Amino acid sequence: MHSLPHDAPLPVERARAIRLVAFDFDGVFTDNMVYVFEDGREAVRCTRSDGIGLRRLESVGVQTIVISTEANPVVSARARKLKIDCVQNCPDKRAALDEIVRDRGIPLDQIAFVGNDVNDLPALTAVGLPIVVQDAHTRVLPHAMLQTDTPGGHGAVREVCEWLADLHLAGQSHG
Amino acid sequence: MHSLPHDAPLPVERARAIRLVAFDFDGVFTDNMVYVFEDGREAVRCTRSDGIGLRRLESVGVQTIVISTEANPVVSARARKLKIDCVQNCPDKRAALDEIVRDRGIPLDQIAFVGNDVNDLPALTAVGLPIVVQDAHTRVLPHAMLQTDTPGGHGAVREVCEWLADLHLAGQSHG
Amino acid sequence: MHSLPHDAPLPVERARAIRLVAFDFDGVFTDNMVYVFEDGREAVRCTRSDGIGLRRLESVGVQTIVISTEANPVVSARARKLKIDCVQNCPDKRAALDEIVRDRGIPLDQIAFVGNDVNDLPALTAVGLPIVVQDAHTRVLPHAMLQTDTPGGHGAVREVCEWLADLHLAGQSHG
Amino acid sequence: MHSLPHDAPLPVERARAIRLVAFDFDGVFTDNMVYVFEDGREAVRCTRSDGIGLRRLESVGVQTIVISTEANPVVSARARKLKIDCVQNCPDKRAALDEIVRDRGIPLDQIAFVGNDVNDLPALTAVGLPIVVQDAHTRVLPHAMLQTDTPGGHGAVREVCEWLADLHLAGQSHG
Repeated sequence: MHSLPHDAPLPVERARAIRLVAFDFDGVFTDNMVYVFEDGREAVRCTRSDGIGLRRLESVGVQTIVISTEANPVVSARARKLKIDCVQNCPDKRAALDEIVRDRGIPLDQIAFVGNDVNDLPALTAVGLPIVVQDAHTRVLPHAMLQTDTPGGHGAVREVCEWLADLHLAGQSHG
Repeated sequence: MHSLPHDAPLPVERARAIRLVAFDFDGVFTDNMVYVFEDGREAVRCTRSDGIGLRRLESVGVQTIVISTEANPVVSARARKLKIDCVQNCPDKRAALDEIVRDRGIPLDQIAFVGNDVNDLPALTAVGLPIVVQDAHTRVLPHAMLQTDTPGGHGAVREVCEWLADLHLAGQSHG
Repeated sequence: MHSLPHDAPLPVERARAIRLVAFDFDGVFTDNMVYVFEDGREAVRCTRSDGIGLRRLESVGVQTIVISTEANPVVSARARKLKIDCVQNCPDKRAALDEIVRDRGIPLDQIAFVGNDVNDLPALTAVGLPIVVQDAHTRVLPHAMLQTDTPGGHGAVREVCEWLADLHLAGQSHG
Repeated sequence: MHSLPHDAPLPVERARAIRLVAFDFDGVFTDNMVYVFEDGREAVRCTRSDGIGLRRLESVGVQTIVISTEANPVVSARARKLKIDCVQNCPDKRAALDEIVRDRGIPLDQIAFVGNDVNDLPALTAVGLPIVVQDAHTRVLPHAMLQTDTPGGHGAVREVCEWLADLHLAGQSHG
């Protein structure tokens, strides 16, 4: 995990305040690839290592959720397997975030969003801690504070979770 | 995006005149790989990022179409999902281009073709702006004016779309 | 295959004493990726080269077994194809090892375990020869004596098998 | 394509005499990976570019055949699609070669074999032109005269075909 721009200090205080992490699905839980079958059905590739990170982040009291533009059965399938909440079919991810703020009583500045492409900009620019994956599209980089060192689908979720969990644990032991 | 040969100037005026981009499918929307199942059915791998590029290119008034040698259900499936027109089962891609010229009233010099292998040569040598992907077969390189910096299936379509859209927008604001 | 830490001598005597190698599945036989389909079914990617290694290791008298946290049909399918025993649905891999010790009469110090992530720590810290794959999570590295030079799913199993078989054969010819 | 060992001259005369190329399947037409599904079915990944090479090699009069250890429906499926003959279920590839010699009247020294692993050794050591792919197992390298510059499944078949076709064409024009 590193800051954007690269010479900025790590936003440690913002990160310690985070109570919920919202993840885009394609390009974050996956490498942004889609397997297309003859009948039009799709598949995606994820890493087993993400589940361990999500469990660890929840164990320090941080909530997690997936926000996906498409309504896609593979997103539901993966979220179910990972036991993580999932909001789908929301072209407007900012609106989805506002609903989360209302429902869970967590203000935007205590929410982190992890994205990879221009359709994540409304969400990235709204939250307290905007994070992009290592292979995010160049157009979104100027709008993020943090970037993972691992690409989407290859451990980016795990990396975000471990980094935040470490910070929360360090904060608790010093607090 | 860079010129071929590398020291040639970027064909900016030709690019601004482009009104339609025709794409080969395998090796352009995909990494030219095919997944083969026991029953003979096939699957391919595409990137989610291409859709965003196609929408942006259309928004500046450039048409798009897929021209594929094979009649293959995975091509239809992907084209349907991307909401892009698709001509299949045309071993002679030059003939398919001529039909497009006739149907849409767009002359060949206002058409770009994006390909990756020797079966694209009749199309590449016919259009005003021949483009190949970063991992195109070496035999086609001498026949292209532009080459993407990203390989087929890993953002080549997105790159072509963004580059042309940027040029068209710049042309409009200066025009 | 190299030692961990890198400047430690290769544990040749320990390796020659090994009578059974227990392998984690995900991240060892695979690259830790999972293909997720719309109906929630999964697939994994393995390498054909592992089978040749397993047969060679067995030919020098070393037993092999797969120990997997999840109960997953793809693990059963792959183990059946590779003709290797398989213990599944054991969140506690140490308990699974203890049962193997009891059933087969092989003490822990004559068992090697090959893993890749933190859920392998109870097993890695129990056996005589703890091995991790080249792309193991950094948190497990301090607990391993050996690391493969090939990543999980790309020949790590084959590498472990060939290395141990070579050592056993050399031991027999000198013994 | 380069010689093995690297400083040996290219076996151009042997290559010009080749009348049939026999290919191993896994690791040559594929990257030696196998996708494993929950029901035990398998899939493999091939490249579309191989078909163009096979057609070109046949056009200069060289026959082609696949020899596969396993009887596997994916091999049949791919061979059918590529319109290439296929011998399966032959653990003894040397015996399969002998049958080809008998049936087609082509002596072993006019046959090339392309392989990747130790189960190809009986075939590689029998033919006039033993070829291995760029990512072949180190144990087979000493038994090959040529090695492709591209890995199995990523253009190795295409490379062998183009190289042999170029040589045959050059030989015809000079002959």
